[in-house]
This record gives sequence, structure tokens and C-alpha cells, in this order.
Amino acid sequence: MTPTTLPYAENDPRAVRLAARDGTLVGPTAGLAKGYVQVNLVILPEAQANGFLRFCQANPRPCPLLAVTEPGERICGALGEDLDIARDVPAYGIYRDGRLAETVHDVAGIWRDDLVTFALGCSFTFEHALALDGLPVRHIDEGRNVPMYNTSVPLIPAGGFGGRLVVSMRPYRAADAIRAIQITSRYPQAHGAPVHFGDPALIGIPDIGTPDYGDAVTIGEDEIPVFWACGVTPQQVLVESAIEFAITHSPGHMLITDIPDSRLALL
Amino acid sequence: MTPTTLPYAENDPRAVRLAARDGTLVGPTAGLAKGYVQVNLVILPEAQANGFLRFCQANPRPCPLLAVTEPGERICGALGEDLDIARDVPAYGIYRDGRLAETVHDVAGIWRDDLVTFALGCSFTFEHALALDGLPVRHIDEGRNVPMYNTSVPLIPAGGFGGRLVVSMRPYRAADAIRAIQITSRYPQAHGAPVHFGDPALIGIPDIGTPDYGDAVTIGEDEIPVFWACGVTPQQVLVESAIEFAITHSPGHMLITDIPDSRLALL
Repeated sequence: MTPTTLPYAENDPRAVRLAARDGTLVGPTAGLAKGYVQVNLVILPEAQANGFLRFCQANPRPCPLLAVTEPGERICGALGEDLDIARDVPAYGIYRDGRLAETVHDVAGIWRDDLVTFALGCSFTFEHALALDGLPVRHIDEGRNVPMYNTSVPLIPAGGFGGRLVVSMRPYRAADAIRAIQITSRYPQAHGAPVHFGDPALIGIPDIGTPDYGDAVTIGEDEIPVFWACGVTPQQVLVESAIEFAITHSPGHMLITDIPDSRLALL
Repeated sequence: MTPTTLPYAENDPRAVRLAARDGTLVGPTAGLAKGYVQVNLVILPEAQANGFLRFCQANPRPCPLLAVTEPGERICGALGEDLDIARDVPAYGIYRDGRLAETVHDVAGIWRDDLVTFALGCSFTFEHALALDGLPVRHIDEGRNVPMYNTSVPLIPAGGFGGRLVVSMRPYRAADAIRAIQITSRYPQAHGAPVHFGDPALIGIPDIGTPDYGDAVTIGEDEIPVFWACGVTPQQVLVESAIEFAITHSPGHMLITDIPDSRLALL
């Protein structure tokens, strides 16, 4: 349970956003505003944004698009009441010339009239659905960050963007993996069904015990690693595509919306 | 393509039933009346039928119930026009005291007023859906019968019936297996999603190369065996439960209905 001493109502999405806005919340958002959609953010100048839109369209598994703003728009009513894109995320990454240059808690000061925001679905949504169904989510049970891996799977290049797929991994016994495939298939806007299971080498992962991001987790003898497209992919794409200027959320520090998780379910 | 010399319209479900009825068709029904639901049959005296109904209810994956008749009823309009349960199946098995005693082409002569018919969905329905989606179905591609295996997975005993699950197996690469899980999940009345994939030993199959029924098929290096609950299960259950009298279809010789396969899709 979350300690009751938190200075904001951690189950109210708007309260969590306001806590991020006023600097009370600067850490990761996992477990906050449970049941509400959290999103990955990619913010680009309009000159690059149209290309990135085509890239998302071509690669919906890693880049499931929930919302795109008009250039310069900071308030996004489609995502939440009184939601300020430039202040309501606990930590932002600023990319310059294809490198993560800075991590900051507010981008209102560097906001530009040409910035377009892409809100992409996040695996927290399907993890919530898995847990509600009684399936274990190993990294949560072990109090770690989800293990993520670079792969050899090429993305479809579009609009000047390209790179390789990043995946997250959750281990399951076969019957649970089948159920997990069913459940996550209902959430195409939160990465949807897995992209692979079993032998990690087949998608270019040399060592399952050494994730490229996040933490390693226990995989039981009778368990199979199951791999989903991951929201870290677009951040890798910004680097691999050597994009001049971009803002993203900092991994794990998501934007919390007013959209209930179940609203993203196909059925 | 089917040769045009067939003495009946092989794409018309009623014509195929009539061919079985008049003795023109005595062989397996795979590939006939494509796109129409074929069903497994279990026919029991009313004294055992209520128990079997509870057994099906408790074990929907191997025994997905499409229709149950009133005692003595031979014509079943719910399944097809002018459909005669006792004559329209190319081959029947007659079980006495828990043993397959006889295989015949007509059971009209031994029909009884107390016989209740259970029509159970069949994997032909989801194989049709897999093929329409462009997924390979190995045993069809290799011109063989699907490989089937006894397992150590106990069924839920009910109504005096019990036993162990029989599964069918189709090999797939991981990405295709994920898609096959999605597709077959839409057909719970045709066995639905797989029950297992990967290591056959985990469900008590000692040698994947030696099926208990049907034929072995090629499994590629990068392929995983995927296992579905199988309609042969109830026939094994009749044996294991030492049922005094029962009639079934003979494996592969199904009853063809007028129900389009897509009518069984959840969505």
C-alpha cells in the first residue's frame, strides 16, 4: 500500500498531474493513479512531426498513437482536464542532435509554438489488465523495473525515422502466456499482443539475463520469456535517426491521463 | 481442387449429408462443404445423457457444446435442413461396455427412443479461419491427419464421466503462434485457444514424434508445438468411463451442418 502521508491523492489522475506540476512528484509514476492510462510522450517540431506521424502509423506495435496535438498546443483536453503537457510529467528528457542532452522537471520555459506532442500508449495499461485477471507480473512482484532489450527486428522506416524494435519481457508458464496473449490482444493502443516468445536469440537478444534497460527478473524453469513491443522504442528511434531536437518523458516518468484503462480495450 | 467427377456437390452441406445418407460418401469429411461447421457427435441413452451434459459443461475446451437433442430426436433443424443424425454421417462408431465394438455407416436400424445427441464443435472450424488468415496448417500442407496425443491433464469429473485430455498439435513459429492464439480464441465453440505450447513433457506427452492418433508432422527448428483441446477427448472418456452404450461419429467422419464457420466466431 502507498503510505497515507503522500501530499496528494495518488489515485486521482489530476491530483498526480498537479503534484508533478508543482514539483511535489519528481519520481516514476508506476502504481500511481491506478486504473488510468499513462502515456509515453514524444514532442517534436512541426517540421519533423508529420514524418513521425507516418512512422507511428507504420509501426503501431511500438508506437500506438493515442493523441496528437496541434502545433504549439500545451493543453490537451482529449487526455485530461486542465492537462499541461509542458509541466505535468515528473521528468522530461531533452534530445539534441540525436543525444539525450538533459533531464528536467519542466519544459514550459523552452516550449515553442511549433511543438507537436504525440501521446503513445504504455504497457502499464495491459499490466493492470493482466493483474486484474490474476496473472503474475514478475517485475512488479519482484519490485523491479520491467526488463527491456534492444532487438535485431527492424522497424519500418517512414518520414525520416527508423531503427530497431525495443521489447519488454515478462515470463509466463505456457497456459498463462496464452491467457496473457488474449488479454493484451484487447489493448492494441497499449502495444497489444506480444511480438515474440521463447528463444531470445531469434530476435537478436544475446543474453536474457542482461537487459539493455530496466532490471533482470527471475525466469522459472517451466517459464517462457514473452516479449512485447516497448514504448522505449521511439526514444531509441530519436537517437538512431539523429533527430535535432525532441522532448520525451523520462522512462518510467509518464504523463497520467483521465482515460480509464478499460477505455482502451477493444471489447 | 476436388475432382469434378464427385457424384455430389461437395461444397453444399446438404448435398454432402445426402451423399453420406445414400452411401455415396463413406470416407472422411475433411475439405468437404468448406466454410460450414462440422461437428463431433456423442449419442447416449437418456440415463447417461444428463451426466454427460454436466461433463461437457465442466470441460468446455475439449467438449464445446453446440446442440443437444431431445430424447429420440433424429432430425435436428438447429444443425441443418432435413438433417438425419442416424444416417448423415459417413461412419459411426458404436461403443459397448467401454469398448469400440463396431464401425458402421448407418445407425437408423439401432436407433432408440431414449437416445440423446450431443453435437460438439470441431477444430476444422478454426483451421479454416487460420488458413483464411494466411497461417500454415502443417498437417493439411503435408496431406496428413492432424497429430493427436493423450496427455496427463485430468478432466473435471462430472455426471459419471471422467478421464484425461486429448490434444491436437500444430507447429508454428512464435509470431504465427501468437496470431493463431488470437484467431482460435474467437472460436470457443470449436475448442478455442490452445491449452499449451512448447515442452510436450509438461502435459505428459513423452514423444512428440509418435502421436497416439493421426499422423506425425514436420516441426521446423524455429517452430514450437502448439496444443489445442481435441474432439477425440469424449471418445476416450467413453472408454475410460466404461460407458455401456454409446454412438459417436468415427474420427474424421464428421456430421456437416448448415452453420457457416464464421457464425461460431465470438466477434
